[in-house]
Amino acid sequence: MAKDKKLVESITSMKEDFAQWYTDVVKKAELIDYASVKGCMIIKPAGYALWENIQKELDRRFKETGVQNVYMPMFIPESLLNKEKDHVEGFAPEVAWVTHGGQSALQERLCVRPTSETLFCDFYKNDIQSYRDLPKVYNQWCSVVRWEKETRPFLRSREFLWQEGHTAHATAQEAQERTEQMLNVYADFCEEVLAIPVVRGQKTEKEKFAGADATYTIEALMHDGKALQSGTSHNFGDGFAKAFGIQYTDQGNQLQYVYQTSWGMSTRIIGAIIMVHGDDSGLVLPPKIAPTQVMIIPIQQQKEGVLAQADQLYETLKGICRVKVDDTQKSPGWKFAEQEMRGIPVRIEIGPKDIEKGQCVLVRRDTREKYVTALEQVPEKLAKLLDTIQQDLFARAKAHRDAHITDAYNYEEFQSVLEKNPGFIRGMWCGSQACEDKIKEDTAATSRCMPFAQEQISDVCVCCGKPAKKLVFWGKAY
Amino acid sequence: MAKDKKLVESITSMKEDFAQWYTDVVKKAELIDYASVKGCMIIKPAGYALWENIQKELDRRFKETGVQNVYMPMFIPESLLNKEKDHVEGFAPEVAWVTHGGQSALQERLCVRPTSETLFCDFYKNDIQSYRDLPKVYNQWCSVVRWEKETRPFLRSREFLWQEGHTAHATAQEAQERTEQMLNVYADFCEEVLAIPVVRGQKTEKEKFAGADATYTIEALMHDGKALQSGTSHNFGDGFAKAFGIQYTDQGNQLQYVYQTSWGMSTRIIGAIIMVHGDDSGLVLPPKIAPTQVMIIPIQQQKEGVLAQADQLYETLKGICRVKVDDTQKSPGWKFAEQEMRGIPVRIEIGPKDIEKGQCVLVRRDTREKYVTALEQVPEKLAKLLDTIQQDLFARAKAHRDAHITDAYNYEEFQSVLEKNPGFIRGMWCGSQACEDKIKEDTAATSRCMPFAQEQISDVCVCCGKPAKKLVFWGKAY
Repeated sequence: MAKDKKLVESITSMKEDFAQWYTDVVKKAELIDYASVKGCMIIKPAGYALWENIQKELDRRFKETGVQNVYMPMFIPESLLNKEKDHVEGFAPEVAWVTHGGQSALQERLCVRPTSETLFCDFYKNDIQSYRDLPKVYNQWCSVVRWEKETRPFLRSREFLWQEGHTAHATAQEAQERTEQMLNVYADFCEEVLAIPVVRGQKTEKEKFAGADATYTIEALMHDGKALQSGTSHNFGDGFAKAFGIQYTDQGNQLQYVYQTSWGMSTRIIGAIIMVHGDDSGLVLPPKIAPTQVMIIPIQQQKEGVLAQADQLYETLKGICRVKVDDTQKSPGWKFAEQEMRGIPVRIEIGPKDIEKGQCVLVRRDTREKYVTALEQVPEKLAKLLDTIQQDLFARAKAHRDAHITDAYNYEEFQSVLEKNPGFIRGMWCGSQACEDKIKEDTAATSRCMPFAQEQISDVCVCCGKPAKKLVFWGKAY
Repeated sequence: MAKDKKLVESITSMKEDFAQWYTDVVKKAELIDYASVKGCMIIKPAGYALWENIQKELDRRFKETGVQNVYMPMFIPESLLNKEKDHVEGFAPEVAWVTHGGQSALQERLCVRPTSETLFCDFYKNDIQSYRDLPKVYNQWCSVVRWEKETRPFLRSREFLWQEGHTAHATAQEAQERTEQMLNVYADFCEEVLAIPVVRGQKTEKEKFAGADATYTIEALMHDGKALQSGTSHNFGDGFAKAFGIQYTDQGNQLQYVYQTSWGMSTRIIGAIIMVHGDDSGLVLPPKIAPTQVMIIPIQQQKEGVLAQADQLYETLKGICRVKVDDTQKSPGWKFAEQEMRGIPVRIEIGPKDIEKGQCVLVRRDTREKYVTALEQVPEKLAKLLDTIQQDLFARAKAHRDAHITDAYNYEEFQSVLEKNPGFIRGMWCGSQACEDKIKEDTAATSRCMPFAQEQISDVCVCCGKPAKKLVFWGKAY
């Protein structure tokens, strides 16, 4: 058992050092490894399987709204990146530059895409001629590069995987509707599939995307009380269209600029899954996203009939859930620790005594509750249990999130809340960037969003005391 | 009708100029567009949907053999690329180099991966310790970059999409088995799904992959008689393991080097689909890979009941095939031309007269045969028809391929065949690279492969007349 315990004991506890706990989990659950290029990550099978499930589910939801997938080149000529002033200011400081192809210096250097607005605009400029060509609702799954100084697996790495949707519309209203629609797709996905409750809202001017008219965001709260921006959707108005000259002929034969949006979700969301649901034994995966939902672990598997019964259970269950049998030569205790570390929602223990009684034991990963279950009732019981776990994870995350939302009415309260109950602070805001800057300077908290569900909890700005315009969710963030 | 014809007439005929026909088809069928970076392509929805279907089907077949997906960084430090001598010589001349991150010059320049053997080796070196860690059967779906001088859509572009599998095994035999297994996965996929017959064989020393012990290939014949290397599988032996120091402790507690393989298939295969099945009206897609298998085209759709009947047909069929209704405001003739250009395997024409008679007309894209079919019989008839088309496309491609395989017994015959019946030439080979070099110099043909199905069709080399060792398939190639 000494060996069995080692796997678990080697994780730092969340309370002791949350950042180290996170690093331990991503490594011990075998989600990633570090690469020879600083700040880049190797996504291992357990991590990539999570991403595949995220892709499958999001892609299906995208396509239901009419999205078509495409693929743009990974390189952006410098002159193209420079076309939209705000955009280039936002991204140029953190891009990787290709200067040589083979033995020759390039005539113009190319950046590796940090995001692809400029490429889509350059394409739309030629591809869109008439109102009949609209809307364009394109998306791509790819990797992007941002030359960050400080990096952390999934949360901030120099290369990450994501999808980026880029749309063009005939009217400002249609663009706004699409922007909101995609934010809602993200929010529903997070809540229904990842069991992560989110706050939907709009970013302030200071926090919006470089080149956007308006940025909308979903913000989730991690276990340590820090916020994580989990998906964003941008309305560009006709700003990019004017910078790139994307025009169409309308039904009245007049030239008009298009209205554009973009929206993205990345491997960062895997960080949210870890930090919302995980515990001191490792990952806890919501059943809907778990690559393996059930691990059957035979006890005393060397005894006659045990492996056969485990395999038979596997055959019964494989049509109703993603199930595996761990028939390796490790001890049951070691297998339990591994299943827990990897966050597999349910394990089924089955040994000679169980088989004698025609039963097995279902164990929930999240609560560790055990259910002795007659073999013939396992399929029904298991299907319900997976459902229950999914719902309970969401309810637990929501209760935790709600317990860490505090209203603050003045600056003293604001500052003390950050110490006493780290999480989201609801506070009114006058609308000036000076207050955002001061808050960040003093407390490291930022405006996470102006929630769609606005309330007037006070008449004055939580920072300066001047008349308030908006309710803002504030918080420290990843 | 003038407008209807334009779409079709604007394609160059295959006979007149095959290369131009190809370029016309990829553009007019809206598979790709050219990008602002020379030699890169924009894969449009119709092209990307093909790639998604290829991915889905290949990925399923991979996973059935135990493959796990991962993701490696896109950058390779120069020192890492340099570790295996043959490999770096093969790739260094054609890579893109990143020299700056943000505002700063990098201490060591990074290349954008042209292939990822070196990254996987660097990872395996740490990840593999014991025989218990073997085999590793990993794959990634990603884009790679090779700074080619001459480029053509899908066939040769500076960036392309592919999958690359990289495996590590305890024994040479296991590595050899995996190499052959994956070649067979590719071959079966091409024949069963893409309806493209392939020759399976081994590359000569001259043509093998940089750093491999042995390269296996599947070679397909395009409509113009040129060969296309359609997928490759490499056995590295322990060469990379020795260069990178990838060792494991075996069951007898001895340190051993691992044996490795890699294998890849890319968006190039879309070029093969086009050039094997296409005709002067555009694409012809095998039903199993076609994103849309059936297009319902209403005739006189403004008349009452026509669109309703088309929609009802759609509802009936959507569970058994990938079907759409073209209810745009274009003329039926225009819609027919579009459906043909895009290679949609079957169209269903339905107008007021058909409805009166309780029928519709099924039209095959490949042969243009028409089948007047009672509405209630459409599902059954259509399912069979899609099957038949799939089989017929394979049979037709195979007949064409076989008609363009010619045996040559001496150099005079060899040279004249290339003029008279361009295609594969079967010719014996002495095994010397000098003969390969001479043949390439004189005729531009290369050794495509030494087929697994060896025959001794003559005792002497088709080039030099010295004793022959191997039967080789020769041909001009893309």
